[in-house]
Amino acid sequence: MSRITPLVMAGGAGTRLWPASREAAPKQFITLMGGHSTFQDTILRVSDPALFAKPVVVTGHRYHFMVREQLAEIGIEAEIVLEPMRRDSGPAIAAGAALLAARDPDALMLVLASDHVVRDEVSFRQAVTRAAGAARLGGAVAFGIEPDHPATGYGYLKPGAATKDEGVLVLDAFVEKPDAERAADYVGSGYLWNSGNFLFRVESLLAEYERFDPATVEAVRQAVSQAGDDAGSIVLEADAFAKATALSIDYAVMEKTSQARVVPVSMGWSDVGSWHAVWEIAEKDAAGNAVHLGKKGHAVFVEASDNYVRADDLVCLVGVSNLAVVQTRDATLVYDRSRQDAMKTLVRELERRGRPELAEHTEVFRPWGSYQGIDRGERFQVKRIVVKPGGRLSLQKHFHRAEHWIVVRGTALVTVGEEQKTVHENQSTFIPLGAVHRLENPGKIPLELIEVQSGSYLGEDDIVRLEDIYNRV
Amino acid sequence: MSRITPLVMAGGAGTRLWPASREAAPKQFITLMGGHSTFQDTILRVSDPALFAKPVVVTGHRYHFMVREQLAEIGIEAEIVLEPMRRDSGPAIAAGAALLAARDPDALMLVLASDHVVRDEVSFRQAVTRAAGAARLGGAVAFGIEPDHPATGYGYLKPGAATKDEGVLVLDAFVEKPDAERAADYVGSGYLWNSGNFLFRVESLLAEYERFDPATVEAVRQAVSQAGDDAGSIVLEADAFAKATALSIDYAVMEKTSQARVVPVSMGWSDVGSWHAVWEIAEKDAAGNAVHLGKKGHAVFVEASDNYVRADDLVCLVGVSNLAVVQTRDATLVYDRSRQDAMKTLVRELERRGRPELAEHTEVFRPWGSYQGIDRGERFQVKRIVVKPGGRLSLQKHFHRAEHWIVVRGTALVTVGEEQKTVHENQSTFIPLGAVHRLENPGKIPLELIEVQSGSYLGEDDIVRLEDIYNRV
Repeated sequence: MSRITPLVMAGGAGTRLWPASREAAPKQFITLMGGHSTFQDTILRVSDPALFAKPVVVTGHRYHFMVREQLAEIGIEAEIVLEPMRRDSGPAIAAGAALLAARDPDALMLVLASDHVVRDEVSFRQAVTRAAGAARLGGAVAFGIEPDHPATGYGYLKPGAATKDEGVLVLDAFVEKPDAERAADYVGSGYLWNSGNFLFRVESLLAEYERFDPATVEAVRQAVSQAGDDAGSIVLEADAFAKATALSIDYAVMEKTSQARVVPVSMGWSDVGSWHAVWEIAEKDAAGNAVHLGKKGHAVFVEASDNYVRADDLVCLVGVSNLAVVQTRDATLVYDRSRQDAMKTLVRELERRGRPELAEHTEVFRPWGSYQGIDRGERFQVKRIVVKPGGRLSLQKHFHRAEHWIVVRGTALVTVGEEQKTVHENQSTFIPLGAVHRLENPGKIPLELIEVQSGSYLGEDDIVRLEDIYNRV
Repeated sequence: MSRITPLVMAGGAGTRLWPASREAAPKQFITLMGGHSTFQDTILRVSDPALFAKPVVVTGHRYHFMVREQLAEIGIEAEIVLEPMRRDSGPAIAAGAALLAARDPDALMLVLASDHVVRDEVSFRQAVTRAAGAARLGGAVAFGIEPDHPATGYGYLKPGAATKDEGVLVLDAFVEKPDAERAADYVGSGYLWNSGNFLFRVESLLAEYERFDPATVEAVRQAVSQAGDDAGSIVLEADAFAKATALSIDYAVMEKTSQARVVPVSMGWSDVGSWHAVWEIAEKDAAGNAVHLGKKGHAVFVEASDNYVRADDLVCLVGVSNLAVVQTRDATLVYDRSRQDAMKTLVRELERRGRPELAEHTEVFRPWGSYQGIDRGERFQVKRIVVKPGGRLSLQKHFHRAEHWIVVRGTALVTVGEEQKTVHENQSTFIPLGAVHRLENPGKIPLELIEVQSGSYLGEDDIVRLEDIYNRV
């Protein structure tokens, strides 16, 4: 029996877990429980080589190096497919299917969101095994979560007749997110939550997709066959991929096909789509308070119950209940967990005010490492820069700022003009305004340095890249 | 008619407005409303030379330079009396009285807390004038605030018969903080809030104090007559002052004396003794939300009402009501405004956990200026240092750390070993481990620099002061 190839969808960027999750570091890449991101947990969940082939990760250029870094952290290899632009889940899944189909039309593909939590892996494996058996014979198989309450935040699946496969039912209908009353009806009638995860034979999926939208499948097949390469990752050809119609796989195929089936499963699943959902799945103390603390984070509760606190510093809750308090280096959210719709209003308001905290973190990830703004004045700013071993910033210059670098850990190889020198821990160097320069980490441990920029204009866009090993010139 | 000398009590350090107010920067020195601290507002309130003589400020060594700086900011001179240790308000007031009595036994002294808010200055002046008239003839006069609700957080004054002075009543009794039921009775019976502010003739106060505790008055008189000098401020002699019994002026004199009178006054007074009280006196938007924002502070309210937000960064409140959210660089408080007693529990809990955020701010004030920790790693830390024009750090050395200084504003005069050099904006210098060094600001504008310390131990106590113009060797 051939193994199942997981297709892990890691290109999304939501704001429902702001301010922890942002465009620059979306939900799937941040740690919500335990030590791993949900992306890492998703990959680990499908890492058993007895059942799964090497996973394929679909993401965008922006998250390319984040995906690589997170894979490296857990020591698992994956094939990475880069979308040149977002086209929703339909074309992304079709691209994965086309890629596998070129190798083996009978390949089975398991599509997984990378930002869900599954706590019961045994049930997950059982459901996958059941779905695989059914998918080998035909259309797509959805995973329907057995509801434990009448949620209004999910779509529902209406299960139909049993099939000859144990635990696999005909999928009668997809149902949009209901209101509270309707949700209660659905749960009473045995409907299941739509987890958005599917399993199918790749050619069968493409054939169904083609029936409803042949142009998109043609565009996707072209984008795959003409794909380029970026440091070993597959880059879908942009002109072709751009022609694909942006649509979710639910709308593009699942709701239209008559061949779909569903495997009901109870596996401790959550889409962790709100801070309320994060609190629900978190471990709580006797008073119902849950915490997730950064390195310097600390939480104190006084006469406080049923709260969720995520903190990078000290956060104290006094006399309050049912709140989510999310404190990050530059933004703090205090939020009544029951008011899920209000988060959308907040995000719109932050957009309207043009607040940079909506999209960017103070910590910014780059192919070569990361940097974090730690202080800023009128004519200066201070950053902590971490360069990975072997990392190499572009050869660059700035028109408006000079830079001081003080190495606090590791060793830097610094090029300024024609000169090159090694700067060791506790040494410093100066990059005059306008000087062509480059920073590299030639060592075996991360290089950490403090950068003090001074000048009349300190925007990130005052940079001329003359040469870049990451192709960002 | 001789003028009244204000005695402004500025030595206290409470935790009721934590995390904004801390031991290192108590409530009276922080900005709660508008652009001034309550200490500054208190000084300004008694700055009319027609009515008031030069004020005397009583404080501790720790706040000496903060008092000077805040006085300089508002351009008002005061006589500063430094207590060598805290002895509660009784001995502090007696010391002020003894100081003035040596010059003029008939001097009138107005004792003012420096951490109260008074919004109606006309009524304040009228009350002071009435009290002065009465105090000239005898015992101390208290200011009794006409209550607008049955507060349980204040002591009460029981007013008695009218005197021949308009608006001045006999003070029948002091009453401790009541429970809610008793408070309602008091308000119904015309009792007044004890504002803790008094006016009296200095020798008359000392004579009464002597009747009840002659040893303390003797100790205080000695501490005054043997006082030393610190940069023009009066330093009470420590051995003598230590012998004074620590007691509030209420207990030491006011509750015992039969000569006290009271001036009832309604002057928009608040002791701003809780975040609830701060919210009460703050300007609010239509939804009842009040904000106090730092330079980079920003607040967003979504479906939120009747909250108080104090923020140094972005703070968003969603779906919550009646909270005080106080966000500072290193600690955030989320607090149900109605739960005043719970703050005490919180403070005890922070003490028990040994949290440094209880007492210290990330910004630390020194005679020469201030510094702020902006980043910290295992073997390094980064500070932003501001040195006032003419400011001069001690000649010092460190055993465990080297320091890099990058000047981002102004000019530094740097001594390292035998060498002295001027470091200009955008230049840097290096202080090797163990090197004797000194930093000065020889210029006319503040000197701002980024200090990067590296070494195996980075505590503030790794400092050997060889010479210090502020006598801290």
